[in-house]
Amino acid sequence: MGQMIQDDTIVAVATPQGTGGIAVIRVSGPEAVNVVGRGWKGCDLEKCASHTVHLGTLMDTEGEAVDQCVATVFRSPKSYTGEDTVELALHGSPWIQRRAVETLISYGARPAGPGEFTRRAFLNGRLDLAQAEGVADLISASSRAAHRLAMQQASGGFSRKIDTLRERLIEFAALLELELDFSEEDVEFADRTRLLELARTTRDEVASLAATFDAGQAFKAGVPVVIAGVPNAGKSTLLNRLLREDKAIVTPIAGTTRDILEDTVEIGGILFRFIDTAGLHESTDEVERIGIDRARDRIARARILIWMLDTTADLNSQLAELRSLLPTLCANGTRVLLLLNKSDITSALPFPADSHADSPEQPFTQPDGLFNAIERVIGISHDIGINDDETCKGNEADVSNIDKVIRISAETGEGLPELESTLTAIATSEHNPDTELIVTNARHAEALRAAADSLTRAIDSLETGLSSDLTAMDIRQATAHLSELTGALTTDTLLHHIFAHFCIGK
Amino acid sequence: MGQMIQDDTIVAVATPQGTGGIAVIRVSGPEAVNVVGRGWKGCDLEKCASHTVHLGTLMDTEGEAVDQCVATVFRSPKSYTGEDTVELALHGSPWIQRRAVETLISYGARPAGPGEFTRRAFLNGRLDLAQAEGVADLISASSRAAHRLAMQQASGGFSRKIDTLRERLIEFAALLELELDFSEEDVEFADRTRLLELARTTRDEVASLAATFDAGQAFKAGVPVVIAGVPNAGKSTLLNRLLREDKAIVTPIAGTTRDILEDTVEIGGILFRFIDTAGLHESTDEVERIGIDRARDRIARARILIWMLDTTADLNSQLAELRSLLPTLCANGTRVLLLLNKSDITSALPFPADSHADSPEQPFTQPDGLFNAIERVIGISHDIGINDDETCKGNEADVSNIDKVIRISAETGEGLPELESTLTAIATSEHNPDTELIVTNARHAEALRAAADSLTRAIDSLETGLSSDLTAMDIRQATAHLSELTGALTTDTLLHHIFAHFCIGK
Repeated sequence: MGQMIQDDTIVAVATPQGTGGIAVIRVSGPEAVNVVGRGWKGCDLEKCASHTVHLGTLMDTEGEAVDQCVATVFRSPKSYTGEDTVELALHGSPWIQRRAVETLISYGARPAGPGEFTRRAFLNGRLDLAQAEGVADLISASSRAAHRLAMQQASGGFSRKIDTLRERLIEFAALLELELDFSEEDVEFADRTRLLELARTTRDEVASLAATFDAGQAFKAGVPVVIAGVPNAGKSTLLNRLLREDKAIVTPIAGTTRDILEDTVEIGGILFRFIDTAGLHESTDEVERIGIDRARDRIARARILIWMLDTTADLNSQLAELRSLLPTLCANGTRVLLLLNKSDITSALPFPADSHADSPEQPFTQPDGLFNAIERVIGISHDIGINDDETCKGNEADVSNIDKVIRISAETGEGLPELESTLTAIATSEHNPDTELIVTNARHAEALRAAADSLTRAIDSLETGLSSDLTAMDIRQATAHLSELTGALTTDTLLHHIFAHFCIGK
Repeated sequence: MGQMIQDDTIVAVATPQGTGGIAVIRVSGPEAVNVVGRGWKGCDLEKCASHTVHLGTLMDTEGEAVDQCVATVFRSPKSYTGEDTVELALHGSPWIQRRAVETLISYGARPAGPGEFTRRAFLNGRLDLAQAEGVADLISASSRAAHRLAMQQASGGFSRKIDTLRERLIEFAALLELELDFSEEDVEFADRTRLLELARTTRDEVASLAATFDAGQAFKAGVPVVIAGVPNAGKSTLLNRLLREDKAIVTPIAGTTRDILEDTVEIGGILFRFIDTAGLHESTDEVERIGIDRARDRIARARILIWMLDTTADLNSQLAELRSLLPTLCANGTRVLLLLNKSDITSALPFPADSHADSPEQPFTQPDGLFNAIERVIGISHDIGINDDETCKGNEADVSNIDKVIRISAETGEGLPELESTLTAIATSEHNPDTELIVTNARHAEALRAAADSLTRAIDSLETGLSSDLTAMDIRQATAHLSELTGALTTDTLLHHIFAHFCIGK
């Protein structure tokens, strides 16, 4: 377990850096009450009960008042760290905060390292490792979904699931080992079919938990949505509207955007990371061509692609450009939203929907195909159904890869609510943070994958009738991987790695 | 008094903006416990004693957990505002902070305006107006001196002084008015000579308190120190060294600095505002000339001037430049420090101290005068004593205006400690924040000046034997001005003006 000796008392500002009404300084360790008490003008903190609050003045070693403050006393083990803890709420000036920490150091505390309070909470058994990591996630959560997943993890929901799986495996291994002890007598305690069944179920559960990681990562960092299309289709205008700010420079000049612009925004509780790209076309401008190459690269890695069609321009060339991307999108399982932009202009015009049908380059055939879908959409927004993976097999990419066609005006905001609700629906269609346990931590995903691999080996042993001791070893290994997750099995190096990413004061 | 009805409950984040281990949300008002209680999963807050701390979970209106948090209950009147108050310590993510405030608003709280908690504390008599202003100063204090002055004000030290003066005047006026009531009987209760004496002492006290404001302002915003000299004397190198950073661009090319560069740094507990200026000389470069004009303007407004002499260059022209400024500096009572820079180079050279003595333009005479001082300093740093104002009278400016000559090397840092301790000594020579009551607030200075004026009128009346009622009126007016200071007499407009400058959450 790598228990460290924590016989010293640590101090740090726990509130955000900067100026505010109040700031909180946290002191934790066996000498916490004593350390604060040395500079405390007020009641005798040693005599104060746990969970009580006291007004007083912190004096420095020269007897000068650092600040009037409110001290909260927490007695071990009923504190965040499990140790004696005193929290001082003082005036939120950076000068006072610094001075107070210096003063408490001069009274015997040591400056806390990043995450050291939470590390102590873990070492004192106040929370397990997955919960501790959940605390860090809680602090960095920037959407309802990320917050919910972090809450579930910090409050132990995730750990309980892991513990259930682990206990099942321990029981399993125990049965196999019991059998092993009596192997001379050729007794078979465990029903092999039942065991195989149990191993498979558990492996599948572990593997599918691991498989949620990509989604979990996206919920934490923002579900990546690439906005693409030919030049001047209104991509940057849409980005600005989605972000509700003027992030991208918008001009009527085609090719204004060359760099990849991205930013996150919360929509329907989900954090999205929108990526604006350069308009795709054959360009002779060197800088623009680099931008276009990058755009193609981002499209190839998108989870969701918004393809902007400029309905005031030639549709055929735009659709041809999209069609050329479809094999890649299809292979990647990218979800595609087709936006018919500039609805504010084209709804007022008699839109020449048929003018393209007779075009010689017309690559779509009626009544099927993308053009038909578009044609049907001109006038009313039309849902052509959720992408059916079956039709996407092989290289036969077609419109079935497109989730929805929405008529919008990036300029006026028309159609934006529909776009937003569609994005939220797509983002949660595979994994829903509201109802599902989702892995958000790479370390957890890795441990789960390793556990699943061990279980697969155990299943192979059972299936091929190999000796029980090999099977039992694999099961034990799977158990160990699950134990890493909650920290029942851990090392100092791992702890260091985990807590170094915390902020100081937590 | 402008008492407002405060029947609602307010909420705001009290800790600095941003991400941290924890954040504190403050809820204050008659419904504070109730508002938090509506979303509280934990013990019954209504039944909790004042000054106790409780772990629980804040739930939103839809029953979803916003965060696990620690609630501290303060019961009226034993709270900062004097009202029932609940402080929630939650995980310091901006998302959680926003969500928690939204949730508490949905349970009936109203977002607090800037300084509204402190305003309520004032209206509930928890602190007077000068103390409330001291709280704002505490939060923005960025040096030991500013902090000490703010502490004195926030803890009521300043108010007690004002109250003493005010009570003396009330008694005074009462005596005069008693006399007035019996005026028909031609009785003279008050001893006129004693009264005059008392009025003069009080007026002098009030006036000298008002006169500390310039120093108080400097302690708060930084004592302005202008660094000047001819081009390439090493001014920017000195600025960077004093600030311990690379603020100014330094090159061996004379005239590198054109803009006025300034920044603050705390030295010996005092905040200094160092202002680097363009080198003074006849320039043909248009931009540089604008810089030089600005430098002259700053020099004319300096409290302390550091004149940098390049000891590797011709001293005569440099001293002539300084001499031309002396009448202005003298008239303004500017304190001057003469720095003999580049001591690292000149200490190794046989310095040609006498070569200037025979120069035809030599404007200084031996054994007195600046040149003599300089000559004596080459080799050893020499204190030529604190500026004696008497010798500075009229236009006869001379070296007596110079506080000290210090040999330094801006390049190596030699002599810097002496420069710093000299700066601290000069800054505190007139008014010392460690031992003195100093006015730091423009509103207070104005009220004190007005009170002093009223008292001067009262003294005139007493001296010329005018009727007691006129004198009493002036005394009453002086009392009213002092009452404004602590807020015993105030208006809503004044309160609005004062608290609008607070941060939200305080």
